[in-house]
Amino acid sequence: MFTAAESDPKLSKEQAGPIEAKLRTALLKAQYARLQKAQRALLIVIAGIDGAGTGASVNLINEWMDARFIRTMAFGEATPEEKRYPPLWRYWQPLPALGRTGIVFGSWYQPLLREAAKKKPDPGVIQSLAQGIREFESMLAGDGIQIIKLWHHLSREAQKKRTDDLLAHRETAWQVHPSEIKVRKKFARLRSAGELSINLTQADFAPWHIIPSADPDMRAVATGQAILAALQQKPSPIRSNFAPDNGIPKAAGGRAMAGAKIPPRIEKLDYTAQLDSKEYDTQLEYWQARLAELVRHDKFKARSLILVFEGQDAAGKGGAIRRVTHAFDARQYSIHPIAAPSDIEIAHPYLWRFWRCLPAPGKIAIFDRSWYGRVLVERVEKYAAPADWQRAYAEINQFEAQLTDNGAVLVKFWLAVTRAEQLKRFHEREASPFKNFKITPEDWRNRKKWTAYMQAANEMLARTDTVRAPWHALSSNDKRHARVAVLERTVTALEKALDTH
Amino acid sequence: MFTAAESDPKLSKEQAGPIEAKLRTALLKAQYARLQKAQRALLIVIAGIDGAGTGASVNLINEWMDARFIRTMAFGEATPEEKRYPPLWRYWQPLPALGRTGIVFGSWYQPLLREAAKKKPDPGVIQSLAQGIREFESMLAGDGIQIIKLWHHLSREAQKKRTDDLLAHRETAWQVHPSEIKVRKKFARLRSAGELSINLTQADFAPWHIIPSADPDMRAVATGQAILAALQQKPSPIRSNFAPDNGIPKAAGGRAMAGAKIPPRIEKLDYTAQLDSKEYDTQLEYWQARLAELVRHDKFKARSLILVFEGQDAAGKGGAIRRVTHAFDARQYSIHPIAAPSDIEIAHPYLWRFWRCLPAPGKIAIFDRSWYGRVLVERVEKYAAPADWQRAYAEINQFEAQLTDNGAVLVKFWLAVTRAEQLKRFHEREASPFKNFKITPEDWRNRKKWTAYMQAANEMLARTDTVRAPWHALSSNDKRHARVAVLERTVTALEKALDTH
Repeated sequence: MFTAAESDPKLSKEQAGPIEAKLRTALLKAQYARLQKAQRALLIVIAGIDGAGTGASVNLINEWMDARFIRTMAFGEATPEEKRYPPLWRYWQPLPALGRTGIVFGSWYQPLLREAAKKKPDPGVIQSLAQGIREFESMLAGDGIQIIKLWHHLSREAQKKRTDDLLAHRETAWQVHPSEIKVRKKFARLRSAGELSINLTQADFAPWHIIPSADPDMRAVATGQAILAALQQKPSPIRSNFAPDNGIPKAAGGRAMAGAKIPPRIEKLDYTAQLDSKEYDTQLEYWQARLAELVRHDKFKARSLILVFEGQDAAGKGGAIRRVTHAFDARQYSIHPIAAPSDIEIAHPYLWRFWRCLPAPGKIAIFDRSWYGRVLVERVEKYAAPADWQRAYAEINQFEAQLTDNGAVLVKFWLAVTRAEQLKRFHEREASPFKNFKITPEDWRNRKKWTAYMQAANEMLARTDTVRAPWHALSSNDKRHARVAVLERTVTALEKALDTH
Repeated sequence: MFTAAESDPKLSKEQAGPIEAKLRTALLKAQYARLQKAQRALLIVIAGIDGAGTGASVNLINEWMDARFIRTMAFGEATPEEKRYPPLWRYWQPLPALGRTGIVFGSWYQPLLREAAKKKPDPGVIQSLAQGIREFESMLAGDGIQIIKLWHHLSREAQKKRTDDLLAHRETAWQVHPSEIKVRKKFARLRSAGELSINLTQADFAPWHIIPSADPDMRAVATGQAILAALQQKPSPIRSNFAPDNGIPKAAGGRAMAGAKIPPRIEKLDYTAQLDSKEYDTQLEYWQARLAELVRHDKFKARSLILVFEGQDAAGKGGAIRRVTHAFDARQYSIHPIAAPSDIEIAHPYLWRFWRCLPAPGKIAIFDRSWYGRVLVERVEKYAAPADWQRAYAEINQFEAQLTDNGAVLVKFWLAVTRAEQLKRFHEREASPFKNFKITPEDWRNRKKWTAYMQAANEMLARTDTVRAPWHALSSNDKRHARVAVLERTVTALEKALDTH
């Protein structure tokens, strides 16, 4: 794999000059034509042997292309703030919008490369890290982010010479990072770690290129050519790279479900369940007090709580949320009402906006509608192509697994009303002076698509009901019953997670 | 001030019912008509005696108004992350966009109230905190955020009774925060701290209302009425609340300047300064090495560096920035190219988007154009009303003082070219295949307004050149001269700040 690069090929100044001039013009044109005007972003992952000049490549890209539309995303050791969130959290935040380019430095490959370079690497850890990377990159690629990965390589001798030359003068010595001096001693291991990582994560939609880096002009031309080729290429269609067992769906999950019959879980709920007013007051106060104690418990400081509310229009999501938040400290929670995405959100992968509002440890995030919009409204209203919402089940399971792996208690509610009850509530809302803002022509339009929405909701329940992030489908024909049930399920999930019994 | 509230007025259920029903309808209508449809946001600051039911008011507002457009901004002790930035940083981040409402809980009044409630408050600290609040609120109000502040009050006896009643039952005891139990002992001091704080920060554009809070219905009605009155009122015109000496301008700063003649600082630069190619290479390497050492110095870990680049089109900002970043670690800096604001940015105060990209300690932020757009392009192109850009000088000085108070080293560059040199560069750009993207019809249009831009730039230099955040106006007719000068000035500023000589 590295034979060509380790022969340390060179370009003479006379050769390089005209090639570079042509490349720069072509790169700029492609940046405008292929990125700015097309619905696409570009992510350039820079990796390689320390001291191969990866930093110089970052400078080069910024100089050769229009730097105003390029953002360098450079990561070192995770900060204390970053450590509070799932490992991929810090990479999600600065992802480039459509039309933009991101150069990633110190990327999601660091943990994999580090493990692979150990004297005794753990094959299980390596496989799992590589799988995580494949899933992450395929999700980004599926959402319009083209990825190319540049491995900077050179021979052990050339690496040593390059760093020694820089170290020889005070004016350039600062450019050498301590890690670059150590490379010569463990070159073989770093080389094999690179090879393994590249093999495990080579993909049509996120290809690796080896950049010969001993000679600055050769490195510059190879870098520019790789980027140009990527920009000129039609993005390849994504085949889902998600492990079928991800998210551990309780029933037949993942793609296996596609042909199977979807159980009508929502229709089969018991819609007669109800609570009288007095019993409701007692139960409400009881469960709120228990919930209040749990979120103030010392053990909760290392966890977080994520509540997802979905359901038909007028099913009572807002009212249920208010009963829950009554038990929380205002400094502790935030409510995220999810409506149509903004322009900036649309220009990013669909999970991006949710990554931006994850709760820190000790905090609570409540989603009034959520990322499930992808497989509900976006599916039914055809805002998402079938291939896109179909792959979303696995993406969502994988997303939620990252949250729960990181200590979040994730509880998802589907509040269900019958079609007749919904009609009654629509009429009541129209008649009430302080509720009629809640009813819009869109609600009536959605109601006409009742069956399509039910089908989507049932399939969602079947395919994303996981052990760690279960769905609770609750009858909400009686609001009092639903509110108490929401509180009780939340308390039960928290008690189990905190082990406070 | 508190006499009425301490008489603990009550409303009977019979009185409250019809009033509340009317209020809710009126509030919803006003929320839509006055906020959603008008160019305005609402900020409701909730404060008062602990245990007066401030939390209940937050719930009430969310229930009576359309909660989807309301965000609760609740603050406790500053987190380690928040402590890395200027004190107001955490309040800037979640500010409501136009059309939205923010309820602020644990607001910027906390430090003032805490100081004022001490046994021996420091009058200097109190005056300075109050001045900071007045400036902050007047800036928000000037940018379309209407502010009302609700002080929840009740008698000492009623406060004691309310908390004792809650504490009597397990189901409600959790609602009592430990601080609420202590209130009875230091009621007099808390009361006088409230009175002082209110007096010092009472303003037409951000009025305080006293909410009688002993009786829940009375509290609810008073809260609703105060919000309704605010929404129905025409926002009052803002008179600048900025202290004239803010930012310590070197010359006659602040408003004092308005009538004075603006010195033609840019025109008076020496445009003959230049460096030959060999000298340039030596100097560049020398200053880059010194800069590289400084930003890797231990002392820099507690500081940050903010570089602002302004200047005429084609003055060479991008090239100068690249020469500077060459000395930095990619993980350490970010470049912020400032173009026209996005929709979301326009819906916020103009400084909001800059607050979002401040560097943490040990980091560097480079602004390729900046918040000075307010007094340059927005002034000349009339995107900002005269009153708005005129008050911006003081606002900017105050903003920058917060940055430098917090340890940032702030260096501002105006790169200047003569009109003839600019023309030459425009033509060169048009002729170059990889530079012609840099020249647009807008550049030619701006060039026609040369005098207006120069006038704005000179006034900006005069009014915002402060001791702690100085402007460096540099001739950039010779790019080599300008690049070395930028490096040298940055190094000098950093060395002085870090005291490394």
